[in-house]
Amino acid sequence: MEYIKKENLLRENPRELKVSIGSKVTLWGMVYKIRHMSGFDFLLLQTEKGLVQCVCSQGTDGLENLCENAAVEITGSLREEKRSRMGFEVDVGRINVISVPFAEPPLVINGKKLSAGQKTVLDNRAASLRNEAQRAVFAIQSETCFGIRQFLKGRGFTEIHTPKIVSGSAESGAGMFELDYFGKKAFLAQSPQLYKQMMVPVFGRVYEIGPVFRAEKHDTSRHLNEYTGIDLELGFVTDISQLMSLEWEMLSYAIEHVKSACPQWLEVLKTELPLTDTVPSVTFEEGKALIAQERGYASKDKNDFEPDEEKALCRAIKKQTGSDFVFVTRYKESKRPFYAMDCADDPSLTESFDLLFRGMEITTGGLRIHRYEEQVEKMRRKGLDPADFEGYLTAHKCGMPPHGGMGIGLERLTACLLGFENVREASLFPRDITRFTP
Amino acid sequence: MEYIKKENLLRENPRELKVSIGSKVTLWGMVYKIRHMSGFDFLLLQTEKGLVQCVCSQGTDGLENLCENAAVEITGSLREEKRSRMGFEVDVGRINVISVPFAEPPLVINGKKLSAGQKTVLDNRAASLRNEAQRAVFAIQSETCFGIRQFLKGRGFTEIHTPKIVSGSAESGAGMFELDYFGKKAFLAQSPQLYKQMMVPVFGRVYEIGPVFRAEKHDTSRHLNEYTGIDLELGFVTDISQLMSLEWEMLSYAIEHVKSACPQWLEVLKTELPLTDTVPSVTFEEGKALIAQERGYASKDKNDFEPDEEKALCRAIKKQTGSDFVFVTRYKESKRPFYAMDCADDPSLTESFDLLFRGMEITTGGLRIHRYEEQVEKMRRKGLDPADFEGYLTAHKCGMPPHGGMGIGLERLTACLLGFENVREASLFPRDITRFTP
Repeated sequence: MEYIKKENLLRENPRELKVSIGSKVTLWGMVYKIRHMSGFDFLLLQTEKGLVQCVCSQGTDGLENLCENAAVEITGSLREEKRSRMGFEVDVGRINVISVPFAEPPLVINGKKLSAGQKTVLDNRAASLRNEAQRAVFAIQSETCFGIRQFLKGRGFTEIHTPKIVSGSAESGAGMFELDYFGKKAFLAQSPQLYKQMMVPVFGRVYEIGPVFRAEKHDTSRHLNEYTGIDLELGFVTDISQLMSLEWEMLSYAIEHVKSACPQWLEVLKTELPLTDTVPSVTFEEGKALIAQERGYASKDKNDFEPDEEKALCRAIKKQTGSDFVFVTRYKESKRPFYAMDCADDPSLTESFDLLFRGMEITTGGLRIHRYEEQVEKMRRKGLDPADFEGYLTAHKCGMPPHGGMGIGLERLTACLLGFENVREASLFPRDITRFTP
Repeated sequence: MEYIKKENLLRENPRELKVSIGSKVTLWGMVYKIRHMSGFDFLLLQTEKGLVQCVCSQGTDGLENLCENAAVEITGSLREEKRSRMGFEVDVGRINVISVPFAEPPLVINGKKLSAGQKTVLDNRAASLRNEAQRAVFAIQSETCFGIRQFLKGRGFTEIHTPKIVSGSAESGAGMFELDYFGKKAFLAQSPQLYKQMMVPVFGRVYEIGPVFRAEKHDTSRHLNEYTGIDLELGFVTDISQLMSLEWEMLSYAIEHVKSACPQWLEVLKTELPLTDTVPSVTFEEGKALIAQERGYASKDKNDFEPDEEKALCRAIKKQTGSDFVFVTRYKESKRPFYAMDCADDPSLTESFDLLFRGMEITTGGLRIHRYEEQVEKMRRKGLDPADFEGYLTAHKCGMPPHGGMGIGLERLTACLLGFENVREASLFPRDITRFTP
């Protein structure tokens, strides 16, 4: 019998390299790039914090086995070097090559950006993600999540984990993936909507960041069939402006967090993150009018926005106010789900909102019905059978506070933040109508 | 056009009630329990922080509409009261009843514990979760997750989100849920194993906390068909003791975090969390010997542990060392997956470990194969076709550092921490072979 202690036995890079300038360090990482110069080699080492520039003079111990994509341990001294991105470089004393690749990568991965086409990039994800600009995207995505969690925790939200395998009585049969659950028909959850509502009387404020599945047959630059949903729900909310202010506080917090946590990754992507004190908010009808004005003609669909209309609205708002974001409120009742609360002053509209960001809808939210009879009545009106929602309606039966919430798509948020045209660029392993590998 | 500001418009309870003693407060919550006394009423208000005792004298404004499970706003003054659980109570001035329930709950939810049977409890989850002891379980689970995330972030791990819909070329066809993906056969991911390995050369250290799907036909107290996996993977690891120490540091950190963040919930459950400086570690063979000694007979299965053997081993370890935990190492190659690294000194064994906790396996981990040829050879040896794993093997082809990791089941961890016999007690909405509702 042996004993395992609480101790850090890992081989790891110093937390802050800068403070080690002038002293000897040992670094672990993957060799990103080697450039042979006359009399010495430049080596870029991929570490958690980004690429570290290393200089090996000829005859450096271990140099003979070195190649790109090798895993190495490098010992050397850290010296100031203003021309390197980090402001320092490693004068390499010894290289220990720990493992070497079997073959060249199927695409060039160590350029500033990937130059291959999207199919090649996605087919070879385990290679393409090693590119510096790709890593930057997902480092920023990870810190965005972290910022959002930190904000929500500070506001008293409890993290929950709700099931992704759901029975037929979920939100709506359309657009759901079906699966065989031990001989019974089950579905993949389109959103944690019903569960997060059920949790409001339990915890008051809840959130979940997890996978969401949409079997929609859209093959566009804005759709994924599996994405990461940031879902939150809270009690004692009676006005959507409370939710919109909450979201704006949260996004601002997350963006500020990314700015301070990821300067090196923002630098790699040459991106500036938008941040304003306020966001304009228009009603659906006002939005339609702005779109007609922007495009010079009125759209046929009076009940919803087409993707092109969302883009036109964002252009109009940007011109008028300078804002990259715009809230839209008072969507039509016919286009919103059964749990949406109708407007007291006009039951053909709902107490709902979307947040559009640089032409794309990134959030849908609103107030929900909390009274049992009202919910049952609206289900019937929409042609749904309340008996299919028994577990959910138990919450309403037993009493619910007025509540509301929202769902944000993490990949869309990331894509818009970084100015991408295609949401696939913000998904590690995107799933679309033609792709579910690797 | 209006403008939404970054401002907190929510109606929310004071962050720290204790500091408000002597002053007037407004609280929002659900009425958990009312006890009528002579001349006054006791009311327990469910808030995010736990139950707050409130005292209403007869004739208090709003009292006439009050009932259990109403959502209320209470204004009153906070005074010291040693006999109440929080050390204070609210002398109620006014009650504003915001919403009332439609019906009585289908089971008694405001006792100290639920007294209904498991089926009733799970069938009526939106009601039963409101019970104080149930809320305590999931508040503790949420803080466990928080502690783990905080620890991992501090150690340089990047959070990732990997797909749950995977192609046929996932870990193993057995025990996977199948679904129709736009006319093609797809599966639900049994674990993020292959993806997290692919991410090691990208970020060095990665983790994911997300749903994991197992189509296993076990109907036991230890199995869920969907659970929350805490998965991590890291590079430059060459010895499993590095991983075991890391896990022990992480669990100790999370347990300490729960102790400091959830004293009120631990009090509700009357639970003391185990915490020791070291954890014993035995090899699989030593484990078998200890089990034979404990049970008085040797088990027939020489290659794996039966659930009863894991229990017997934990009993033996507890007697010998006092520890609730035990690591087991050097599992048989035949029982571990294709990516497990074999022991250099005995290729019939693997560089792997499990962590057993109070009779139940809560973690499986180990070193993985990082060399391409070795991985391809082992796949063939195990009867797998490397061509089915092309996207995954791209990582090995392009070079990987030596690496390893582990997967922890959040529900099992919670259940063992809190001394539950059945893992379903640690799942908000459990999924088992007979249940996928609500």
